[in-house]
Amino acid sequence: MVRGRVIALSVTDVRFPTSSDQHGSDAMHTDPDYSAAYVVIETDATDGLKGYGLTFTLGKGTEVVVCAVKALAVHIVDREFEEIVGDFRRFYRQLTSDGQLRWIGPEKGVVHLATAAILNAVWDLWAKQEGKDPQKLLSCIDFRYITDALTEEEAYDMLKHGKLGQKEREEQMLKNGYPAYTTSCAWLGYSDQQLKELCVKALKDGWTRFKVKVGADLPDDIRRCKLVREMIGPDNLLMLDANQRWDVQEAIDWVSKLAEFKPLWIEEPTSPDDILGHATISKALAPLGIGIATGEQCHNRVMFKQFLQAKALHYLQIDSCRLGSVNENLSVLLMAKKFQIPVCPHAGGVGLCELVQHLILFDYISVSASLENRMCEYVDHLHEHFKYPVTIKKAAYMPPQDAGYSTEMKEESVRQHRFPDGGIWQKLISGQNV
Amino acid sequence: MVRGRVIALSVTDVRFPTSSDQHGSDAMHTDPDYSAAYVVIETDATDGLKGYGLTFTLGKGTEVVVCAVKALAVHIVDREFEEIVGDFRRFYRQLTSDGQLRWIGPEKGVVHLATAAILNAVWDLWAKQEGKDPQKLLSCIDFRYITDALTEEEAYDMLKHGKLGQKEREEQMLKNGYPAYTTSCAWLGYSDQQLKELCVKALKDGWTRFKVKVGADLPDDIRRCKLVREMIGPDNLLMLDANQRWDVQEAIDWVSKLAEFKPLWIEEPTSPDDILGHATISKALAPLGIGIATGEQCHNRVMFKQFLQAKALHYLQIDSCRLGSVNENLSVLLMAKKFQIPVCPHAGGVGLCELVQHLILFDYISVSASLENRMCEYVDHLHEHFKYPVTIKKAAYMPPQDAGYSTEMKEESVRQHRFPDGGIWQKLISGQNV
Repeated sequence: MVRGRVIALSVTDVRFPTSSDQHGSDAMHTDPDYSAAYVVIETDATDGLKGYGLTFTLGKGTEVVVCAVKALAVHIVDREFEEIVGDFRRFYRQLTSDGQLRWIGPEKGVVHLATAAILNAVWDLWAKQEGKDPQKLLSCIDFRYITDALTEEEAYDMLKHGKLGQKEREEQMLKNGYPAYTTSCAWLGYSDQQLKELCVKALKDGWTRFKVKVGADLPDDIRRCKLVREMIGPDNLLMLDANQRWDVQEAIDWVSKLAEFKPLWIEEPTSPDDILGHATISKALAPLGIGIATGEQCHNRVMFKQFLQAKALHYLQIDSCRLGSVNENLSVLLMAKKFQIPVCPHAGGVGLCELVQHLILFDYISVSASLENRMCEYVDHLHEHFKYPVTIKKAAYMPPQDAGYSTEMKEESVRQHRFPDGGIWQKLISGQNV
Repeated sequence: MVRGRVIALSVTDVRFPTSSDQHGSDAMHTDPDYSAAYVVIETDATDGLKGYGLTFTLGKGTEVVVCAVKALAVHIVDREFEEIVGDFRRFYRQLTSDGQLRWIGPEKGVVHLATAAILNAVWDLWAKQEGKDPQKLLSCIDFRYITDALTEEEAYDMLKHGKLGQKEREEQMLKNGYPAYTTSCAWLGYSDQQLKELCVKALKDGWTRFKVKVGADLPDDIRRCKLVREMIGPDNLLMLDANQRWDVQEAIDWVSKLAEFKPLWIEEPTSPDDILGHATISKALAPLGIGIATGEQCHNRVMFKQFLQAKALHYLQIDSCRLGSVNENLSVLLMAKKFQIPVCPHAGGVGLCELVQHLILFDYISVSASLENRMCEYVDHLHEHFKYPVTIKKAAYMPPQDAGYSTEMKEESVRQHRFPDGGIWQKLISGQNV
């Protein structure tokens, strides 16, 4: 049962100094410190339950997202939780369409990341308070601006249809988990030696799908792709990720030169905003058998709608922290189903794996009912800081067993990594000053 | 001559309590307090010149933009000004592509508004230090992600071609000014009586082009459009602005019912991100002779590129504070020229008229060389707070006579409106507490 009045929202700037080892490095983000704006909401209910949420960031700028969370907090603090989730669509729109705040978005960039952090915490708490009725899920979606692609009635029919075989798919997931691919082997800043060792280890652990970062230097890319393809053999899957490095024609030319390594997809070949550009690249690369993947920086459902309408992608990569939480991701899962495009979520970062596993399991069990061409990203970093970390078995995400959205971080981790006053940062900062 | 090292950047949250009188109200922004993140840069040069810049906001959230300006300030403070403007394209990309900060954009929302505020200040100072060589302008543009629509070579040819007749156009502007339209008569929150009175006054002052806010309620819109059309007569121009209120089909249906009032355009019929949606609406309304205008919330050059490629707009509305200052606006002016679409800038707000007059005069004199279907928005508010306010004569912008970007605010205005500690706000806040 939904209960309590929200009495407090706290937000913390948590940063991990990952740039020192080049974890997470790619052609555009050369020195990321994986970070999060971490939100905790409390109610006055006697159950002691709290809601934990976060949005992922790369270090600098986390303080800006924290500032935005504080600006949005007026919409949630001092309200009955029942009032929030009881008419979740209305609440979603209050957050995203505040008459003054929407100007600095709308529904994009910093304010939308802040919206995601808050809503992720709401979902975490709600899920702990009660099980979800899939029917009720529809009432969480803001269909504004997408009714030309998906109406509420169509969405209802899809979810109803999705009930067929649901029990079998649940059992299948509990037994085998959801297929994953790894990005941990081939960050751009890793040496060839490091790359080889990581491939050997990953193969031993049962991984069959591998992603390689490209886009900084063509001869380098050729050498690294060759190396990885040799390591993993002809039957395992290879994906490429350029992190928005190229212009449209440049992307076509560059990727054509990597075609011999048989990549399944090229991810983020150009600006995440360039729907028509992606469509052009898609057309040009189709004869080479290379698909287009994008979405981790696709900023809202209106953009995803157009990517689908324009046939600009073959693999849709939702992000649990850039879109407006479960609410907006649901609308994207349903649109992907309608356009028959597989969803292959973006994960890694801080907590993204923990969050997105819920979405992709729901997608399989209740929406897509298919594993064809589908897999979820996995990166082997920073899970130790979470109270309910993901469980990976034989390169698959095993369904989480605890109630909630798996977002709670360990208190000690937050204390140590709080920026700039946590122990880790105090040490680093004083080290720099020496 | 370019001179000095940047030694300080200050940023102030300045807000005007405009919501109390419904100035600026529209279907989506019902209670805006026109505001700005106001930036001042200082150098160690002995000339005492400062650079003033701002980005426009609607009240709440200005503190988030202020926070983002502070995050970006590391890229400008303590650098030689020559190093900044001497390779302005490089500096632009440093601001917009910081490996950590770009994640919370990229090039959109809060960080891009902050980028605009800083760059507007850089242009203000640069323009005071020396006259601009139009050729050099090209080196300010980041062509990343737009080369499939406009190459640097094409841009060069356009600017070269734009030199023909330049002197005559300059003289013409000095004499007659640049044609403007007024939005001051018909904000959504105004009563019919107020609307009538304002129309009478505007007609007396020589205005011939009028914009009406619509989108909240159809019978209301019909009544208000009828009233304004009667007031201004059949020969003056009427434009409609829905501020993103509708879904795609809804926009088509609603605007069709206003066709009898012969509007020139419908502005922002749906989400500012929905390029394909605008294209659909555009096709549907073409038989009714109604064009599509949009751009004030179009967040970067990549989006404008696609609006042009998809034939999704007929009137392109640049914004001096949402795009990355002169640098990015130049690329959009040039793309508009190539696609033969007239530019009709968004203005009003705080300081937008002061800033955008420079851009539209440059567009006419050096790029478009045409006034056909062109006009610049004007709103009669808050100019008294600027040291070099715009001059309007017979419904036209008269070219500014002072060096710089006309962005400097009066010290007393800033002091009084600084949020939350300025005199005006202290009074309002204590009043609320009574």
